[in-house]
Amino acid sequence: MAYDSSNIFARILRGELPCSRVAEDEYTLAFEDINPQAPVHILVIPKNSYVDWSDFAANATPNEQTAFTRMISHVAELAGISDTGYRVVSNIGVNGHQDVPHLHMHVLGGAPVGPMVTR
Amino acid sequence: MAYDSSNIFARILRGELPCSRVAEDEYTLAFEDINPQAPVHILVIPKNSYVDWSDFAANATPNEQTAFTRMISHVAELAGISDTGYRVVSNIGVNGHQDVPHLHMHVLGGAPVGPMVTR
Repeated sequence: MAYDSSNIFARILRGELPCSRVAEDEYTLAFEDINPQAPVHILVIPKNSYVDWSDFAANATPNEQTAFTRMISHVAELAGISDTGYRVVSNIGVNGHQDVPHLHMHVLGGAPVGPMVTR
Repeated sequence: MAYDSSNIFARILRGELPCSRVAEDEYTLAFEDINPQAPVHILVIPKNSYVDWSDFAANATPNEQTAFTRMISHVAELAGISDTGYRVVSNIGVNGHQDVPHLHMHVLGGAPVGPMVTR
């Protein structure tokens, strides 16, 4: 899948759409999901344009990859869910129901989560 | 949470328990989940002893962090789900129902997945 620069996260990154920012560094932005699925629901995205994990794995620098994984625990701490626990989810492609074609991680917490997969 | 070296993944890494290995590199091991929740269900773990994302973020080297994220797309390609899509899930702590106290990522695919969180 080619990167589509009109996707909503690209527009947030360009400042064309607002977001409720939680944290940010040189490589990564974290903001609240506008349709929360849990009491805490934060999205973590790389600032550069990656569609999915394959794209990220092939093209992101070690600094970008490290920043992305570190941001997960950072936002969990900021949101006060680091001790109570949380789920990290990344949905890729059609079977994963990827809703925005810009790689993102959901950080979900504040209450017990349910099964990982339901059919 | 302190690392408990008697956990099942630590035992797999020490060769005390078998696993159905999918892929491996210097820093990371991927193997099939023994209780699959989807047609494809692979676990990706760092070889070093990290309980959760906080532990990993604080202590893993950039090489380890890069290997971990790269292994996700690598196993998706090996399993033939890279094009059809998949879900990556990491459950942390009590609210995340973390079942083994060694950081791991589930890679789930082969069929459409359900909601990320159910209550």
